[in-house]
Amino acid sequence: MITAAILVIGNEILSGRTKDTNINFIAQRLSDLGIDLLEVRIVPDDEHQIIEAVNALRASYTYVFTTGGIGATHDDITAATIAKAFQVDLIENPMALAILKDYYQERFNNIRRRMALMPRGASLVDNPVSKAPAFQMENVFCLAGMPSVMQGMFEALTPQLETAEPFYQNIVTCNLAEGVIGQRLTEIQTEYPTVNIGSYPFYQLPNVGVNLVVRGKDKKAISNATDAIIGMVKDFGGAISQEA
Amino acid sequence: MITAAILVIGNEILSGRTKDTNINFIAQRLSDLGIDLLEVRIVPDDEHQIIEAVNALRASYTYVFTTGGIGATHDDITAATIAKAFQVDLIENPMALAILKDYYQERFNNIRRRMALMPRGASLVDNPVSKAPAFQMENVFCLAGMPSVMQGMFEALTPQLETAEPFYQNIVTCNLAEGVIGQRLTEIQTEYPTVNIGSYPFYQLPNVGVNLVVRGKDKKAISNATDAIIGMVKDFGGAISQEA
Repeated sequence: MITAAILVIGNEILSGRTKDTNINFIAQRLSDLGIDLLEVRIVPDDEHQIIEAVNALRASYTYVFTTGGIGATHDDITAATIAKAFQVDLIENPMALAILKDYYQERFNNIRRRMALMPRGASLVDNPVSKAPAFQMENVFCLAGMPSVMQGMFEALTPQLETAEPFYQNIVTCNLAEGVIGQRLTEIQTEYPTVNIGSYPFYQLPNVGVNLVVRGKDKKAISNATDAIIGMVKDFGGAISQEA
Repeated sequence: MITAAILVIGNEILSGRTKDTNINFIAQRLSDLGIDLLEVRIVPDDEHQIIEAVNALRASYTYVFTTGGIGATHDDITAATIAKAFQVDLIENPMALAILKDYYQERFNNIRRRMALMPRGASLVDNPVSKAPAFQMENVFCLAGMPSVMQGMFEALTPQLETAEPFYQNIVTCNLAEGVIGQRLTEIQTEYPTVNIGSYPFYQLPNVGVNLVVRGKDKKAISNATDAIIGMVKDFGGAISQEA
């Protein structure tokens, strides 16, 4: 199994000012790539917390993707902190420096130069959006926080990821309550152990019901479990509706 | 300092099917209440991962808020797992049972009865939306995943939280680049150590610039640091614009 974690670094998410969209983007792309996203952490721009989180996650999962804190200003501490987590020096990456000088030309200065500082041993992750590269240390990819830039970087790095059979899912949305279908649903889950059946009720009056999500890598079992769920809905006199 | 963490329990977030909105809601409300949100974790509906996360977080922060997994179906394992994390039995909470019986009347059944199972020693958290109560174990509040229900539960529990001076913030949005203002911005941060200055560039062509967020509990320092930032933008020939 190929596994992953995301580490979101950013006070602005924890303060509630900014709604994170990077988690959902990466989660969807990892699902396409057959990689199991098993944990997400969000921490502030705090050295101690970043080190603890990145070291825990990189020891547990195949890949770790961090977002945020790789810009040019005083609050961007990801590169220096990742260097500490890996117990290596923070150095000026010559390739990153060349890219930044070439991009900024006469606007290159000491602040922009900071973006070339990376842990010793890091390799670059291409930034097709705004040039300043991200970096990779072993199984940890440190990406930008700005969604458009992060997305460009993620697509640039995917060819080097080890991938697997993608995850597939079917969703059956019906107007029944969990309390009505729960017993039979447990039986169906037991009958199809290779798929994961999730039950997600919704309650947006007058629309009340449940989304039943059948997910996994075994297409045949997903199809059969979905048929069983549709049969269950009919047996209980429910109606299949659009996803809510 | 009163601190908090959020633990989101849910395969549907990690698979990318569902975009979490609970983190941002709780983050904003905690900011209003003067409580420092210092960590968020998202884990699957997996007993081992939930136990590890909840035990780590409850030992580190004043409050922990979990969302998800307290419904009636087979994939709702939060209550049983929290009982294991606290090393207490899972029992039928008599008050929860009474609420559920009263609410469902003749529709009460064994599946709905599952929602009365809670760790021994839990106290109830009121559910003003759909009745089935959530629960609290010591400093851990286990809430529903459905946003409307979670929000109702959160508002119901806030009166019992220890609170502090709320966080205040000013946002200055300008059309300058981080590479232009970075040096001076560092100086301003140094001059006002009681506030936190975050720099968040945006790059939605043709709109390019940066949001400068001044946050903290010291209103006077926030005001002075904001004035210094506005002065900086003018000094560099930039324009203050709407928040992007």
